[in-house]
Amino acid sequence: MSIHSSIGIVEEQFFTFAEESPFRLSSGATLSPVTLCYETYGTLNADRTNAILVLHALSGSGHAAGFHPEDSTSLAGLTDSGAVKPGWWDDCIGPGKAFDTDRYFVICSNVLGGCYGSTGPSSINGQTGNPYGLGFPVVTIGDMVLAQVELINHLGIDQLLCVAGGSMGGMQVLAWAAHHPHRIKAAIPLATTAQHSPMLIALGEVGRQAIYADPTWNQGNYYKLGRKPDAGLAVARMIGHITYLSEESMHTKFGRRLQARERYGYDFATEFQVESYLKYNGNNFTRRFDANSYLYITKAMDYFDLSAPTGSLAAAFVDSTAVKFLVVSFTSDWLYPSYHSKDLVRALTAAGADVTYLDIVSTWGHDAFLLEVETMTELLSSFLGRLAREESIALPTVAGKPV
Amino acid sequence: MSIHSSIGIVEEQFFTFAEESPFRLSSGATLSPVTLCYETYGTLNADRTNAILVLHALSGSGHAAGFHPEDSTSLAGLTDSGAVKPGWWDDCIGPGKAFDTDRYFVICSNVLGGCYGSTGPSSINGQTGNPYGLGFPVVTIGDMVLAQVELINHLGIDQLLCVAGGSMGGMQVLAWAAHHPHRIKAAIPLATTAQHSPMLIALGEVGRQAIYADPTWNQGNYYKLGRKPDAGLAVARMIGHITYLSEESMHTKFGRRLQARERYGYDFATEFQVESYLKYNGNNFTRRFDANSYLYITKAMDYFDLSAPTGSLAAAFVDSTAVKFLVVSFTSDWLYPSYHSKDLVRALTAAGADVTYLDIVSTWGHDAFLLEVETMTELLSSFLGRLAREESIALPTVAGKPV
Repeated sequence: MSIHSSIGIVEEQFFTFAEESPFRLSSGATLSPVTLCYETYGTLNADRTNAILVLHALSGSGHAAGFHPEDSTSLAGLTDSGAVKPGWWDDCIGPGKAFDTDRYFVICSNVLGGCYGSTGPSSINGQTGNPYGLGFPVVTIGDMVLAQVELINHLGIDQLLCVAGGSMGGMQVLAWAAHHPHRIKAAIPLATTAQHSPMLIALGEVGRQAIYADPTWNQGNYYKLGRKPDAGLAVARMIGHITYLSEESMHTKFGRRLQARERYGYDFATEFQVESYLKYNGNNFTRRFDANSYLYITKAMDYFDLSAPTGSLAAAFVDSTAVKFLVVSFTSDWLYPSYHSKDLVRALTAAGADVTYLDIVSTWGHDAFLLEVETMTELLSSFLGRLAREESIALPTVAGKPV
Repeated sequence: MSIHSSIGIVEEQFFTFAEESPFRLSSGATLSPVTLCYETYGTLNADRTNAILVLHALSGSGHAAGFHPEDSTSLAGLTDSGAVKPGWWDDCIGPGKAFDTDRYFVICSNVLGGCYGSTGPSSINGQTGNPYGLGFPVVTIGDMVLAQVELINHLGIDQLLCVAGGSMGGMQVLAWAAHHPHRIKAAIPLATTAQHSPMLIALGEVGRQAIYADPTWNQGNYYKLGRKPDAGLAVARMIGHITYLSEESMHTKFGRRLQARERYGYDFATEFQVESYLKYNGNNFTRRFDANSYLYITKAMDYFDLSAPTGSLAAAFVDSTAVKFLVVSFTSDWLYPSYHSKDLVRALTAAGADVTYLDIVSTWGHDAFLLEVETMTELLSSFLGRLAREESIALPTVAGKPV
């Protein structure tokens, strides 16, 4: 068992609320109770002012860094080469990393509707004693964030130093900034959008259709059947994987190379490396993700549009003028193209917010926000350092580190 | 019944060959017999020098222009508004159109492996008396073209004035130019590539996986079951439809508009217009296309790489120096981005061919080659006019038209 994370072993924590008065969703529906599964890294300072909430993307979890005790024995916890896989943003969370756990208290929580310990469609509905399935109410990005506000209250934090995340994590960042601006000092939306585009909706819908098309999906009612809609979910995931890469990164990663053959087989076996990659990742995903959660989370993303209902994105940020924004896009990201971030920056500027914007040259497509570690580390560290100085945050002192 | 095509009613024709000596494919496998279903428009001149072969894309057929007698009574023959749908390139084929049928004899044939009358996986295997299914041999773009050479021989045409087509049609154009350069005077590859990229392979494979995932596909053996893998094929087609549009054209066509609702339904019904468009087109496709043909044709595209086996694309065109090329790409086509055409132009130039290249500014994405009718008409007419003059083709004389 090889462990590379500087965070070491971490444990999941659970926070349950809305046990007495139900949690009201954007749709008007209610949930009771609601559990969020989360992890924390680093130490909260005495003022409770050094907390950073990192927010995960579609397939992520509250496990952002370090290892789980059981990772070395579970398939999901291992990389292709058999090494233990750390949390999804381990590259950026830890002592001396972008989110420096010697200085900041980092929190990450699985979203409402998810399948990594938070309440979602695979959870037991207390009223029926059975999993919710499609009986689970449709949630929005705003609902996910509202549940996170409850968690932050529970942790005794009045104001987060920062919220940060990419892709759907970035949408949550923007929902924090638009709906709860006084609860955050800064917001870092990466590779994201303030308004899910028709192309993103189309991709979301095709993924859902792939799941609906799987007869074992059974209208979401599969938890007790001993079979899951793995085939449909794998297809949905494969579509996703194509959109996370760029044409150029696919050329570099796979080209037209064959997987285990020297020449074309003239049959329908997997033969190109890119086919093998998609199939592996599609199948792997079904071992760790719930198909109904995939439906609910993609639907939440499709509903995301901060410019509604006035049609003005600037109007969404009218109360966010005290928030400092670091907006980042990546040149080869065709899923959330740079112009989405530029539209956002224009709106934030019109609203009078303090905005720093970078369009980072990268060939890695949408995945760049996770893969451009060196650039992101430099960028995030200096932004957070400036923030801590300007806001006079009493950061924990670490021997040998300048404050 | 409203008919807008200037071509009027056309009839399918059938040409069967390889009845005695079997047709040998790139894989080494053989087929016997082989039928191609084709149509012709206009009149072959006495010299047999005014023939243009147009080549269809993935989901196309030999029905490129005009109407079939039965169109007014078949669902597949009607547009959304109930009008009769002409052939797929009717906008560009007809008297006075880009491929002017007063001057040229236009031929279009359904590809080998297809499901519109040509021999394919849904055809009856003479040896078993049952449909081929997966017993059909895997064919290549080169095989499709080789079958077309047989058709051209049958029509008594030594040399085509031109071969033209977009997307997979463009690949066939390039295979004609590379493998049968002396049988054509000119080649018009539109919105295409000489080498299917890993991203294109990935998209092809996901479409195939969606079909494999449908249990009614049954390893390709569904023709006699009374049920077809419609759900899987519809998902594959929906993925395709996303890739044929651009982000911008989706904004224009659909935006975030809802289909039959004024506000979000917070459920999983179809609610955005773009979802409705995909679902409609996905389902519609299953009424007119065979899932196994989808597998075979996408596989043929994935194998397409004119730079193999030497690695040099220029080497593929070393015998094509007498062919005149008109290469066209479209700025918003992210499926076959302009750089594919630029690579091709570079290789053709290096090989010493006569090349005209245009990168047309369009917001319509890959579909632009079918939708930018005015631009394409001007471009194709003048290219063909120049060609006819330079090659001293005796075009039919039409009253009131300059020769």
